[in-house]
Amino acid sequence: MASSINMDQLHPAQIRKMIRDGEWQTHTSGLANGYVQCNLVILPESDANFFLRFCQRNPKSCPIIAMSSEVGSPFVDVGGEEPIDIRTDLPMFKIFEKGVVVDEVPDIRSVWRDDLVVFLLGCSFSFEEALLADGIEIRNITEQVNVPMYNTNIANSAVGPLGGQLVVSMRPMLAADAIRSVQICSRFPSVHGAPVHFGDPSLIGIKDIGTPDYGDAVTIKKNEVPVFWACGVTPQNVVREAKLDFCITHSPGCMLITDIPNSKLSVL
Amino acid sequence: MASSINMDQLHPAQIRKMIRDGEWQTHTSGLANGYVQCNLVILPESDANFFLRFCQRNPKSCPIIAMSSEVGSPFVDVGGEEPIDIRTDLPMFKIFEKGVVVDEVPDIRSVWRDDLVVFLLGCSFSFEEALLADGIEIRNITEQVNVPMYNTNIANSAVGPLGGQLVVSMRPMLAADAIRSVQICSRFPSVHGAPVHFGDPSLIGIKDIGTPDYGDAVTIKKNEVPVFWACGVTPQNVVREAKLDFCITHSPGCMLITDIPNSKLSVL
Repeated sequence: MASSINMDQLHPAQIRKMIRDGEWQTHTSGLANGYVQCNLVILPESDANFFLRFCQRNPKSCPIIAMSSEVGSPFVDVGGEEPIDIRTDLPMFKIFEKGVVVDEVPDIRSVWRDDLVVFLLGCSFSFEEALLADGIEIRNITEQVNVPMYNTNIANSAVGPLGGQLVVSMRPMLAADAIRSVQICSRFPSVHGAPVHFGDPSLIGIKDIGTPDYGDAVTIKKNEVPVFWACGVTPQNVVREAKLDFCITHSPGCMLITDIPNSKLSVL
Repeated sequence: MASSINMDQLHPAQIRKMIRDGEWQTHTSGLANGYVQCNLVILPESDANFFLRFCQRNPKSCPIIAMSSEVGSPFVDVGGEEPIDIRTDLPMFKIFEKGVVVDEVPDIRSVWRDDLVVFLLGCSFSFEEALLADGIEIRNITEQVNVPMYNTNIANSAVGPLGGQLVVSMRPMLAADAIRSVQICSRFPSVHGAPVHFGDPSLIGIKDIGTPDYGDAVTIKKNEVPVFWACGVTPQNVVREAKLDFCITHSPGCMLITDIPNSKLSVL
């Protein structure tokens, strides 16, 4: 059924209903254009307290858009008429035990616990839209691949069992577009904000720009420089590497679609 | 007398009085910290009309801070209690005829004409102060030399007899500081605003970064990139190259000190 519907005409609530009804179980990129999509991390209360402090200390990679209002509640206010049930409204979830994936499911009601806390974190879709609106080419969109992402040697600010290194996404640009991108992305601190680096990848510990650690390689044209942003894969990695007893995240690309317009995240 | 006074304790009006009294006839860098200093261009009305449109079309290199309120008036409001007489309140002026310097004097009352129009243009001192306040090193200040400036192949938007190419100033930085500099300088559009380029100098027609066309070379350390800003030498060059019948500018480094706090120029 889903394939016959013009998905990009649908509002967030309509798409979430399709997802809830099991009619859309794949990635959400390109859906509900103009609305914020979020990365998901769900943790038991004790680890959630560490994670909240970790996000506070690493805001560029872990910008919190929303949290569940109380421990054990699966309901989160994402800007619509009423809070949504996080357990059913993403296309696909990964369930981790001690850092290992134990299941990948479209519904987490059966594993829900009354000690869980929900974190929704900003993602780069929001600022990519603002860059495109300004006429800046986003190479991974042009080439219809995932954005290239890289592990770096930039240490996160550690909290309890959570530490690790920053993961970055990369978009190649001419210098003038990179300068404009700093201006545009600075308006969006809750979706990673300004780039963290540009130019020589080796200065942040990236050995081979042609071989991303996640996502796909993209063409870097003559006269372009790679520009690097803090990436939402960072918290996913940190949580997995900490081998916490229990954790739930979204499956890659299968984000939560909120009712928050991207423009609402602009601070200026 | 001047040398025994602690100049950096003096307010703009006090320094202008010393200048007016002939007690300070050299460059103004480091004086009246915290206050806007301006480049000066004075033109007859017909050429002033071209120049005003030129500034409108090339705002990054030619940001107008103030103009005389009427043709023939040497008085300009620069934020103090009353307008100042431009003819006496700069340390040194250059007088041009057909693009050639015919005199360099500390007072232009004897050559004043009732068809002249005064332009005061923003200068990089203002944003350098904001960068320093943020903890960013400015190499030319550290090395106590003039900022290096370069001719580029970036064409100005031409108006009437005024055309030419953009002149840029250069400050070397680590990428993270360059990103921060874009944020800080974007708040100051009336003092050249964000950089126009970073990285490979040859992409904007600079052949040898070690040999500036104006000012002094500075050290570019390992891992640093050169960052380029539109420079107030641009309008000076453009006016000179147009070989206009008559023109007055400040002598290099001998700026007008206004009563406008630098922070007032911040748009955010």
